[in-house]
Amino acid sequence: MDWKTLAEEKRASVLVLIPQAWMLPSPIPPPNEQRDVTGNYIQQFLSPREIEITETDAVGIVNNTTTGKWKAREVNCLHEIFFDAAIADAQKLDDYYAKHGKPVGPLHGLPISLKDQFHVKGVETTMGYVGWIGTFEGKKGTGKEKVFESEMVRELRAVGAILYCKTSVPHTLMTGETVNNIIGYTWNPKNRNLSSGGSSGGEGALISLKGSPVGLGTDIGGSIRIPAAFNGLYGIRPSSGRLPYGGMSNSMDGQNTILSVTGPLATSIGALRLTIKAVLSQSPWLHDPLVAEIPWRDEHEQAVLDIVKGGGGGRLAFAVMESDGVVQPHPPVRRAIHIVASMIERLGHKIIEWKPPSHEWADELANKTWMLDGGTHVYQSLGLSGEPMVNQISDAYGTRKPEFTASQIAQLNVTKRQFQKEYMDYWNSTSSITGTGRPVDAVISPLAPFAATRPDMYFYNGLATWVNLLDYSAAILPVTNVDKTVDTIDEGYVPMSELDEKVYKSYDPEIYDGAHVALQVVGRRFQEEKVLALTEVLSDALGKQAI
Amino acid sequence: MDWKTLAEEKRASVLVLIPQAWMLPSPIPPPNEQRDVTGNYIQQFLSPREIEITETDAVGIVNNTTTGKWKAREVNCLHEIFFDAAIADAQKLDDYYAKHGKPVGPLHGLPISLKDQFHVKGVETTMGYVGWIGTFEGKKGTGKEKVFESEMVRELRAVGAILYCKTSVPHTLMTGETVNNIIGYTWNPKNRNLSSGGSSGGEGALISLKGSPVGLGTDIGGSIRIPAAFNGLYGIRPSSGRLPYGGMSNSMDGQNTILSVTGPLATSIGALRLTIKAVLSQSPWLHDPLVAEIPWRDEHEQAVLDIVKGGGGGRLAFAVMESDGVVQPHPPVRRAIHIVASMIERLGHKIIEWKPPSHEWADELANKTWMLDGGTHVYQSLGLSGEPMVNQISDAYGTRKPEFTASQIAQLNVTKRQFQKEYMDYWNSTSSITGTGRPVDAVISPLAPFAATRPDMYFYNGLATWVNLLDYSAAILPVTNVDKTVDTIDEGYVPMSELDEKVYKSYDPEIYDGAHVALQVVGRRFQEEKVLALTEVLSDALGKQAI
Repeated sequence: MDWKTLAEEKRASVLVLIPQAWMLPSPIPPPNEQRDVTGNYIQQFLSPREIEITETDAVGIVNNTTTGKWKAREVNCLHEIFFDAAIADAQKLDDYYAKHGKPVGPLHGLPISLKDQFHVKGVETTMGYVGWIGTFEGKKGTGKEKVFESEMVRELRAVGAILYCKTSVPHTLMTGETVNNIIGYTWNPKNRNLSSGGSSGGEGALISLKGSPVGLGTDIGGSIRIPAAFNGLYGIRPSSGRLPYGGMSNSMDGQNTILSVTGPLATSIGALRLTIKAVLSQSPWLHDPLVAEIPWRDEHEQAVLDIVKGGGGGRLAFAVMESDGVVQPHPPVRRAIHIVASMIERLGHKIIEWKPPSHEWADELANKTWMLDGGTHVYQSLGLSGEPMVNQISDAYGTRKPEFTASQIAQLNVTKRQFQKEYMDYWNSTSSITGTGRPVDAVISPLAPFAATRPDMYFYNGLATWVNLLDYSAAILPVTNVDKTVDTIDEGYVPMSELDEKVYKSYDPEIYDGAHVALQVVGRRFQEEKVLALTEVLSDALGKQAI
Repeated sequence: MDWKTLAEEKRASVLVLIPQAWMLPSPIPPPNEQRDVTGNYIQQFLSPREIEITETDAVGIVNNTTTGKWKAREVNCLHEIFFDAAIADAQKLDDYYAKHGKPVGPLHGLPISLKDQFHVKGVETTMGYVGWIGTFEGKKGTGKEKVFESEMVRELRAVGAILYCKTSVPHTLMTGETVNNIIGYTWNPKNRNLSSGGSSGGEGALISLKGSPVGLGTDIGGSIRIPAAFNGLYGIRPSSGRLPYGGMSNSMDGQNTILSVTGPLATSIGALRLTIKAVLSQSPWLHDPLVAEIPWRDEHEQAVLDIVKGGGGGRLAFAVMESDGVVQPHPPVRRAIHIVASMIERLGHKIIEWKPPSHEWADELANKTWMLDGGTHVYQSLGLSGEPMVNQISDAYGTRKPEFTASQIAQLNVTKRQFQKEYMDYWNSTSSITGTGRPVDAVISPLAPFAATRPDMYFYNGLATWVNLLDYSAAILPVTNVDKTVDTIDEGYVPMSELDEKVYKSYDPEIYDGAHVALQVVGRRFQEEKVLALTEVLSDALGKQAI
């Protein structure tokens, strides 16, 4: 069977699992008529009770489901693939609650969506590859097909989460857009001229539409933060080894210079905290050999709150990085930086300028890392069906290159480690200028030069990858929306380089109008508690708890 | 200049740094006349005050130096390379104490020796390579020569330790014996027919002679545990990322499938704990990007003590592994296992048999890892001077092989991770048979099939490497000494394989008589506190606090 037929059949087999009664009565108008399909638009198809549920964040849902106010079954009224199993699971939870008068765990009855890298029993994982249909990670007859579950999935079930759908990814996972030959392009529900981001782009779109209160994604070069930012959501890229990655499907699995990590995207910071705390309550380090034994540390959050709430002149110190010296962000992103910076000053916290070691170099090291196998895994995976490579990855993988040798990889690892040390020393050195006695508490920076990317125009990803190279913890802070009357083109702009010019020219106020604009709050390695606390401080001050 | 002359000059330049007055008055008799040069033999050359100091373990020394009873200068009467700098450092500490009435840090005045992989200012690092003489890691004109310091060195100084010598290693570091073309072979002071072990073999010999109360070594395949065991010392291989490795010289640096780690060897368990706690008190995760933020956890030790001291039938559970299914240990090692096993039973703790996933497979994966670069780094380093390879590494590196490619390395990493998971699942599964409600607390196993190796007869290292592959924490427990009248040859022995026969035939009661025999206590990843507590429980019961 050719790849087109295979993809079509797969697409149809997924669509058929959406009950007829849940289908929209008529096609959605085109983007030029209905740019934004979130909020009021989607709510016209829901009952008041459904709106109440979908507008409730994960913390609110769990407050209801773990106290018996809402039944787990009632919450699962959402739009995707294994609803029957989810409803059966929800019934079991309700039975448990009825019998024992208490929840199964801290996520009792909470629906959680998953990026299509997580293996779930009864369901396929294609990761966007036509050639993976009917296989386990491209192989047939492994005995694991539709049986094996990823470690994270096991732990989410153990704390009472209900899994009900898996969401779209770009094939290879190595782009900030979500597109593949099975389901096509995943657009941004807030502004359908733009991408929902990638590689956890399906999560971004679904959660943006309130089709899920929390989703799990992965991030090797921005793949959690990009869709969170593009969709006005909160999301966190934890450091590698904080949350389990065991038993996930992946691209170039076994590459261990820069590791992909799992992490949540959600409509509130509380939901991120809730999810991470729940997983850590399971001692994942006893079940996944690559997880470090670092339990959730309330005292790290408390330390931030003590500074913020305590009097006596205690204050936080932030570094603000508007540009990484490679590209300048678009006008709305620059405006977001200024909004946050002036707010921080208004709150009485300290801001320093961030003058770190070369981010251009960091991006170069990251890009080398994606090419260690010269494209072997990508070509093998596409070759299984003969499907063509999507254009978004052809710059990197369009021609196959020689594989790195062991010595070359070792050299890259040494260089990377030296860069990490240099960056760490720079971070430490800021204690002399913050006035707090500490180095900066976090760095505020754009996650991408644009609010969201236009199709096939993701020209630069260095604003995301430095965090991965350094293995830092970083959360997304939604800040504002593009306003074409304010975020006009900067006519006097002088490009720093050809690349910068290309990025700059991709901005168009008409096209971008309405899009979400977000920044990232970057902390040191394993500072998930602190990063979430800081992001919450900023988010509260922005007056936005849920977008 | 040819390599022989270079090596000779280096040797002479080190010897000349030992003050004439400290040299032994006459040559040491040959091994057949004086097999054991520890204890009474070495003490005949020392004053009663010197004996008092050298017989005091690190905890005792620090109790005296941090309370002003002993001066830091007085303690540094030992045998190696940078005494002048050490004495000057000691004077500074004494001055500090005199002025402030308090110690600089928890290791105030404690002399610590270092394996010759640590960079110390004013001193060279040759790592046993003739070609590294006069260079920084084989390169000239880097500006780092005799200036740069490893992160661990900086932290030890910060807590008041006095660094005064660096000790011998085998070139390449990849053997359990210590031999190179600069200083020749490092023999075992307790039994000079045998090796002091490797690759931290200089540490093992020096500490065994009471020439150092604590030394820092490294362990990628047993290199801390082997010399600790062969010399009747305590030693611990922490999990990777617990202690800093930043700025160390290394073999095949950048190989990151199995990472080398730093850790202490000492004459007491208290000294290991003291050293690790002191380093962790410096928050090394703020100074070394590869260190995980896991402070010292007293409560993990306390949990063990509560079980041991509390009544109510609480007990520990150990697994005992006499053989890994590949080779049988020599008679004295088997006797050590039986000593410890019956003692555990006498104490009322539980013992289960250990039937883990294939250790043969684990050893194969580890051996592949040492060969990822096909020998490139070894050949480069030896090639700098033209010196010949010592025989001990020629089995592995005698012929140069092709380098692994990125895909092959990735495949190895995946296989290794799967093995780690399988082993973890097995460990977890023992909770059903321990009767304690927990999986086994630790595994007791030989570290090598022999008490110590005879020269060039280190035929099998799989008993050490599984711990590295799994990244477990493991401490050495000295148990007994070879007694030729008890540890006779097992005449009816039926070898399991050719390898097993070769190992078995290397045992000779006459040659081995008197040698130290030790075992290892293996805990899960990042369980350093627990492993030390368990080892102390066993050591106390054996009635041996310091050998």
